[in-house]
Amino acid sequence: MKLDSQDLADLAVGAAFLGTGGGGDPYIGRVMVQRCLDEGLAVELVDPDALADDAFVIPTAMMGAPTVLVEKVPSGEEAIHSLKRLERRLGRRATHTMPIEIGGINSTIPLLVGAQTGLPLVDADGMGRAFPQLEMETFNVYGVKAAPIAMADEKGNVALVETETAAKGEFLARGICIRMGGQASLVNYPMDGATAKRVSVPATMTLAQDIGRVVREARAAKAEPLAALVAFLGTTHYGHAEKIGAGKVVDIARKVENGWSVGIVTIAPFDGAEPWRIRIQNENLVVERGTEVVAVVPDLICVLDGDTAEAIPTERLRYGQRVDILGIRVPPIMRSPEALEVFGPKAFGLAAQYSPLGLNPAA
Amino acid sequence: MKLDSQDLADLAVGAAFLGTGGGGDPYIGRVMVQRCLDEGLAVELVDPDALADDAFVIPTAMMGAPTVLVEKVPSGEEAIHSLKRLERRLGRRATHTMPIEIGGINSTIPLLVGAQTGLPLVDADGMGRAFPQLEMETFNVYGVKAAPIAMADEKGNVALVETETAAKGEFLARGICIRMGGQASLVNYPMDGATAKRVSVPATMTLAQDIGRVVREARAAKAEPLAALVAFLGTTHYGHAEKIGAGKVVDIARKVENGWSVGIVTIAPFDGAEPWRIRIQNENLVVERGTEVVAVVPDLICVLDGDTAEAIPTERLRYGQRVDILGIRVPPIMRSPEALEVFGPKAFGLAAQYSPLGLNPAA
Repeated sequence: MKLDSQDLADLAVGAAFLGTGGGGDPYIGRVMVQRCLDEGLAVELVDPDALADDAFVIPTAMMGAPTVLVEKVPSGEEAIHSLKRLERRLGRRATHTMPIEIGGINSTIPLLVGAQTGLPLVDADGMGRAFPQLEMETFNVYGVKAAPIAMADEKGNVALVETETAAKGEFLARGICIRMGGQASLVNYPMDGATAKRVSVPATMTLAQDIGRVVREARAAKAEPLAALVAFLGTTHYGHAEKIGAGKVVDIARKVENGWSVGIVTIAPFDGAEPWRIRIQNENLVVERGTEVVAVVPDLICVLDGDTAEAIPTERLRYGQRVDILGIRVPPIMRSPEALEVFGPKAFGLAAQYSPLGLNPAA
Repeated sequence: MKLDSQDLADLAVGAAFLGTGGGGDPYIGRVMVQRCLDEGLAVELVDPDALADDAFVIPTAMMGAPTVLVEKVPSGEEAIHSLKRLERRLGRRATHTMPIEIGGINSTIPLLVGAQTGLPLVDADGMGRAFPQLEMETFNVYGVKAAPIAMADEKGNVALVETETAAKGEFLARGICIRMGGQASLVNYPMDGATAKRVSVPATMTLAQDIGRVVREARAAKAEPLAALVAFLGTTHYGHAEKIGAGKVVDIARKVENGWSVGIVTIAPFDGAEPWRIRIQNENLVVERGTEVVAVVPDLICVLDGDTAEAIPTERLRYGQRVDILGIRVPPIMRSPEALEVFGPKAFGLAAQYSPLGLNPAA
């Protein structure tokens, strides 16, 4: 399947939802990919089921702080540099690329790589959403080595990291990323086609695209985009979404800590009932109401503009905004015991127990 | 020439002098090398003039804060890991290793590598003393590329940095070093034998050894070690050393800034005359007296224990110590205009003009 400009626009909208508050603004990536399409370059999306077992997939991504991204715009060459460097290290050329993260800008980086190199793109990823750390990958959960990791900045500086665990890879790569100016390309988790089918969250590129399309079509039909979205998500392998509530942003406590944006946003319902509190580490981690845990990672928590149903990234939350809160349950591959070990509540230092949204409703 | 235990002990003493206050405690490196000698391993020192033009020299070193070194003792394998990684990257095996820095612990790291790998060691280095940054190398001054840079920590984590300038290499490698726990091995500046002869400060391993021997022999003969040292240094290619003064440490202002130990030590002479002030960035950078610049980088400034004539590293300076201040002029290769550009006063943000000690005495 070749991607056209409308697909790309839809995908960027959907990626903002799947960014669940974080992941970096997909708009910048969209503009870069659109330029490639305008130049006649094409990106082909491949169904993971159609992937040959001996294909060689090298995922491509950016690492860094979303706040840096909007000021230090990528050159568009970083990911190619990293990819070439990793290929040289491995002594093998990639047959495909793929996102490691579907939420936010990282949905578009592999499109850029695909357009520039001609590599087809596997319609899958390793997070099924956005997460703030490199080890929070189904690739890692199901046994793919994170390293070697190749990184590059917009000036052509390159670094290669070799280490045993994904968590150590995250720590070392983050240090390099900071020295590269707070943002760098990151290419790692190379794997064969058989492995890619086993360890990734399938069909998430088309999912992002479909989310954008559903919202767009609902708007065009003067229908309620959020209701259309909830209905649509119920038909996907994510299986369930629900509107948690609607209200006004009445408080935001937010600071930058260890390179992440952390904080708490308080949203008061219009009926004067108890407010929701959402804890943030780049992404929205948990919605609580009093002592009740309404939804928690890895399930997706999205804060939407009440009028336009656009996903609001955490850095754009402001006092007084009218918002809807949307919860999306993750597919089974993302809520196995081994997956929860890596990106469940405990991995974020949260006391809450994970209870899949819509399956075991909190009391 | 094979190194014996006495040579090693002398070399560690001399390396502390050439550390000019910094460079890390050579004692730890000495203990590691001594263990190798005890196991029957040998280290051969090679005169740079005897080096074949097509030899392939890969210098080996540690990067990090001296204060970390004494708590996080190296495993002894780090430098070998980095060396092997760089050889693999270059597709070529080293025929020799060499120090990048003769002052402090980095005089002993290549000895450890030599003992473990059997590689002979070139009797030369790239600083002729200790400096706090990777670009402050005669290798860099005279055109050798700093990158690729291979690094490893004591747990076997490895990183490779590829960049254009030595200053950028320093910045990226320092970031990795910090994430590796504040200390890591560092292997870079690969060069052929002809280049090594052209760009390095010759005979500095034997210089360190001779300094240690002269001090030891003077003590044994109940002679004045400092006077013996000044006389000896006048016969080397450094060409000149002088006792700047003697006094008591009356003030120390010292803090850790950007990973370096920076500060000012004030030493008052016993005759009540104006005190000397020494500015520090890991190493002693400049001695001033009132508005007069008595000695300044790249010339060496050593603070010695007044009783034992041992070199005192900046981190061991204390109120009340009786000390001698020794100045040593650097050889011509280290005070050319291009060398002063890289490690002269301006490179450290000092306003002082460089005037070679004993050649153009300050007014």
